[in-house]
This record gives sequence, structure tokens and C-alpha cells, in this order.
Amino acid sequence: MAKEIIVFRYGHREVRDYRVTSHCSLVARALGAKKIIVCGEKDESMQKSVNDVTKRWGGSFKVTFVNDWKKELKKIKKKYCLVHLTMYGEQIIKKEKEIIKKNKICIIIGSQKVEKEVYLMADFNISITNQPHSEIAALAITLDRLQSGNELNNNFKGAKLKIVPSKMKKEVIALK
Amino acid sequence: MAKEIIVFRYGHREVRDYRVTSHCSLVARALGAKKIIVCGEKDESMQKSVNDVTKRWGGSFKVTFVNDWKKELKKIKKKYCLVHLTMYGEQIIKKEKEIIKKNKICIIIGSQKVEKEVYLMADFNISITNQPHSEIAALAITLDRLQSGNELNNNFKGAKLKIVPSKMKKEVIALK
Repeated sequence: MAKEIIVFRYGHREVRDYRVTSHCSLVARALGAKKIIVCGEKDESMQKSVNDVTKRWGGSFKVTFVNDWKKELKKIKKKYCLVHLTMYGEQIIKKEKEIIKKNKICIIIGSQKVEKEVYLMADFNISITNQPHSEIAALAITLDRLQSGNELNNNFKGAKLKIVPSKMKKEVIALK
Repeated sequence: MAKEIIVFRYGHREVRDYRVTSHCSLVARALGAKKIIVCGEKDESMQKSVNDVTKRWGGSFKVTFVNDWKKELKKIKKKYCLVHLTMYGEQIIKKEKEIIKKNKICIIIGSQKVEKEVYLMADFNISITNQPHSEIAALAITLDRLQSGNELNNNFKGAKLKIVPSKMKKEVIALK
């Protein structure tokens, strides 16, 4: 099933969140999301480093920034099923069969404290264990489960570099 | 099957890696690993923040530090199957059925560049997509797949706090 998944990152502070938001973006890209929308301080350095990965490793992943989360989520909600990842939510194993049927999904991940209205606006509030851990990990497991592992075989068009999976060495081929 | 999984973090620099190694540790804990062994600068602040989570949310997860990765991995290899996560490795979907049979597994995740000898010492070099992304995400997906999702139902003994999974609110109960 051709599913379209995008990611919405609620909150980003330049410098402080650079690495974590970079990880979120690269995970979104590697695991088949179409783009990440970051609500917070515009961080051109983070954006550039993710774009550089896309240039080398292929695909058409995009990082964009917005200021007003409420306005943006209202707009997204018209087309996408909003799945908010939170340690307080319902367990993913109980809801994934329902969510997997949706064709257009926006996964919301927080950094700083997320306002109550996000919980109310979301179609699903979903937890990956009801334990504190990492939005990067929660995003990864959700992307893997909602795409039934098919994302692990994604092909990245226009890549300049490609890895040949190897038992014990690093093998990279230049494609053009 | 009662499986024992531990995590080995290759490389940690105080301050710079604080958040990423914290995420790795919390993911290891939340997704059922017994402990994380961090090879790098001893970071008491990171250790304390993870221990504080364990005190409040339960379980017996441990963070320890070592200096000599080679010595430590040689010791671990006597008892555990070493699974090194790397973007250059064989695809997890092709190897997970084989790895899942092992009762004692040590998942190795890198931060800085990992020395060639780690690749040679590992029983498996495994990739979660052959794309650059995040060791936190790779760890999460590996823990989820190697435990067939059973880790999502883990119970954390001795917890002071417990979340009641909820459709759209935050519900936490104090247990003692």
C-alpha cells in the first residue's frame, strides 16, 4: 500500500536541540517519511546537514520550518491522520491495526512540553511503552510498525552513494 | 523466552554526547535491556539522570562506564552474542530470525567512528536500512524486533509512578 507519512516536530531550539532534531530528521528520511516539519527556531545549519545527506544518499526528503504549530496542525489535519507520540498515550500494539489502514499519516513528536491542545487535536495519542525514553526511538518504532518493515527495503532515487550490505566490512559504491 | 539483552555504547564524550547517550540509555531501559555499558568519559550527570528515572519508574536498569572497549568486549563475547549496529551491515530483516534464537545478546552501538576491530569481533554486523540515521533509532528497532514486541508490555518492578495509557489525557498514578 502506498502510504504517505510525514513527521511534525513540536519544538526546536537552535544549538540545544541540534543533534536530537537532526536524528529525528534522518530517521524520518531513512524510514520512508516524505518530510519533517519543524515548529521552532529556524535552524539552517541543521537543515543543511540533513539536505546534504539527501544529496549524497538520495530520495526527496525535505525539512521545513514553521512558527505557529496550531495553524499548521489544523491545516495538516484536513488531509492527514494525526498520530501524536507520547508516553501517556494508548499502547501502539493496541492501536496499530487501526492506524495502519490510514493512507496519509502525520506523526507528531514533541521535544519540550507539549500543550494540551495537541493531545485534543490528535486523532491518536500513542505510546511506545508508557515509560520515559526518546522521541527518536518512538518515531523509529512507529515508522517500522506502521509500514510493516517494508520501509527497510526502500530505494533512494538519485543517490550518489550506496552501501552494499556486508558481513564485516564497509562497502560503498559511487553511483554517479 | 527469557532473553537477556545488554547494550554496549562505543564512545561517549561528556557534555557533547550527554543527550544522545541519555536517549540510548533510556531506550535500552524502556525496551527491556538489562544494562548499558558506556565506553568513554565517565559522565556522572548522565548516569544520575538515568538512575533517577529508574528510581521513579521502576526496574533494575544499570549504567556503567568502562575505559577499554577491547578488553570489555572480549569479556562480554564469552557469554553474549555480539550484534553491532552499523549502516554498513547486513540487513536486519535477513538476519533477525537467526539472532532471535540467541539467549544472551549484547547490542553494540557507536557514536564516533568505530574501529575496524569491532566489526571483526562482532558475531553480526547489522544495519537498520543502509542509510545514515541514528544509533538511538537503530537500537530501538533492534530491541523491538529481537523481542517480537513483547518488550512493549514489560512491567517495571518497584515503580513509584505508573502511567495509565489514555486516549487523550495524562494519567499517572503514584504506587507508593
